[in-house]
Amino acid sequence: MEGYAFMHQVRVRFAETDAQRIAHHASFVVWLEEARVAYLAAFAGGYQAIRDGGIEALTTGVHLEYERAAAFDDVLTIGVRCSELRGARFRFEYLVEREGVRVAHGWTAHATVDAATHRPTRVPEWFVEDVVRAEASTRTP
Amino acid sequence: MEGYAFMHQVRVRFAETDAQRIAHHASFVVWLEEARVAYLAAFAGGYQAIRDGGIEALTTGVHLEYERAAAFDDVLTIGVRCSELRGARFRFEYLVEREGVRVAHGWTAHATVDAATHRPTRVPEWFVEDVVRAEASTRTP
Amino acid sequence: MEGYAFMHQVRVRFAETDAQRIAHHASFVVWLEEARVAYLAAFAGGYQAIRDGGIEALTTGVHLEYERAAAFDDVLTIGVRCSELRGARFRFEYLVEREGVRVAHGWTAHATVDAATHRPTRVPEWFVEDVVRAEASTRTP
Amino acid sequence: MEGYAFMHQVRVRFAETDAQRIAHHASFVVWLEEARVAYLAAFAGGYQAIRDGGIEALTTGVHLEYERAAAFDDVLTIGVRCSELRGARFRFEYLVEREGVRVAHGWTAHATVDAATHRPTRVPEWFVEDVVRAEASTRTP
Repeated sequence: MEGYAFMHQVRVRFAETDAQRIAHHASFVVWLEEARVAYLAAFAGGYQAIRDGGIEALTTGVHLEYERAAAFDDVLTIGVRCSELRGARFRFEYLVEREGVRVAHGWTAHATVDAATHRPTRVPEWFVEDVVRAEASTRTP
Repeated sequence: MEGYAFMHQVRVRFAETDAQRIAHHASFVVWLEEARVAYLAAFAGGYQAIRDGGIEALTTGVHLEYERAAAFDDVLTIGVRCSELRGARFRFEYLVEREGVRVAHGWTAHATVDAATHRPTRVPEWFVEDVVRAEASTRTP
Repeated sequence: MEGYAFMHQVRVRFAETDAQRIAHHASFVVWLEEARVAYLAAFAGGYQAIRDGGIEALTTGVHLEYERAAAFDDVLTIGVRCSELRGARFRFEYLVEREGVRVAHGWTAHATVDAATHRPTRVPEWFVEDVVRAEASTRTP
Repeated sequence: MEGYAFMHQVRVRFAETDAQRIAHHASFVVWLEEARVAYLAAFAGGYQAIRDGGIEALTTGVHLEYERAAAFDDVLTIGVRCSELRGARFRFEYLVEREGVRVAHGWTAHATVDAATHRPTRVPEWFVEDVVRAEASTRTP
């Protein structure tokens, strides 16, 4: 997956399928979150580190385009990259594949708020630096 | 549903089905919770009233026996009764039917804890009184 | 909700909240589906009617923008309208409000396929007519 | 985990937490299923092998006792063993631990049915043999 700083795998649970005998489309939203959490653990001290700093990262947008169905027990690889990061906002892009074949792609948008007041607050500086460093390293030829 | 103080209806969502083309068994656990919340809203000022008093009701046990499958769009009626209530513990019993035919039955067990310390704390007196009154009324011939 | 042919209500379940003490963003995807199913039941003989005709409606895209958080037990009103319908594709738009205040909005895209072969197949004519009639009626001044 | 033929790990997803800031009790039901599927993959050719034989394994009962709360990002180890297997019925037992500390335990009951008719049908012989062999091996001193 060219251009993706990080990859994460999920295996489709039986509970995540529906009566069309495929993974329900809402399951992907949860997988993107799991992949994002794994990205933050790998590159930025973990999502808990943000929360420990009294900051919550809210999800302000979700966009998913489904290209192929996924089935029970499929192993999906999710490419994750942080595509924007400024002020109190950041954005992730995702590519979901099964054995090299595209299954879905999309993005999520996020805003950081003070956990107590829920007012917008800037993304912590260390977080920005960690993510920028991680993303930069994947773009080096 | 004889002996049930309260009844609540749910309609099976498509997302709640699985690749067996029936409602996934974990969905019932969520429906029992929705029915229990509706019971508390009807009889005891709502679950939020308990939380507003600085008390959390934890779920300490779940037991479900499935008698028939439920399908997408089925309307299920859930009978709810509080079968035990003392100290820091209470228990609910449930019967799930579809058009008068039994689909499942079970119970959930709960413990009240202080929301801040998570230490066991007695069920509030007003809650006991409200529930006892509601349950007593259904047993009057 | 001006311009919406149909409205559907959901009440936020406790299971649908997360550790940010708000409704998890993936829950909205399930609510949009419930609202869409209710729309089809009201206007087009129900989703089951499509499936009975040997046709499955796949979800090919989901887009959601979250404007405000929803909390446990909130009652949300979801406006639904079919904004496109041609060939083997259709699209729904949604507005989610709580007591007249916007909470979220978005759209879902769908494709109809033959249930057996999963090949694209045109949306049934009766379905198109039912939906066009329903949507037209809401635009009459 | 003495006496458990198989162990499986899950990491608590953010979507699986609730407004009590702990893993929602229904999430455990899904984890037990994931652990059971992994057990079958390890010992009995996978759950898909049963389905490929035209047999569905229905869940007929779930029992869970929660001893400690689990939190977001906790890694839980689930011990799984098949405790009964005869005719058209089988049963699994589970122990959920976090770093050696008990979090929950329970069981699930299952019945095998013909996928087409949904009539009870005996558990396939090869399945019984595989599971008996796996379980026997763990009890050897």
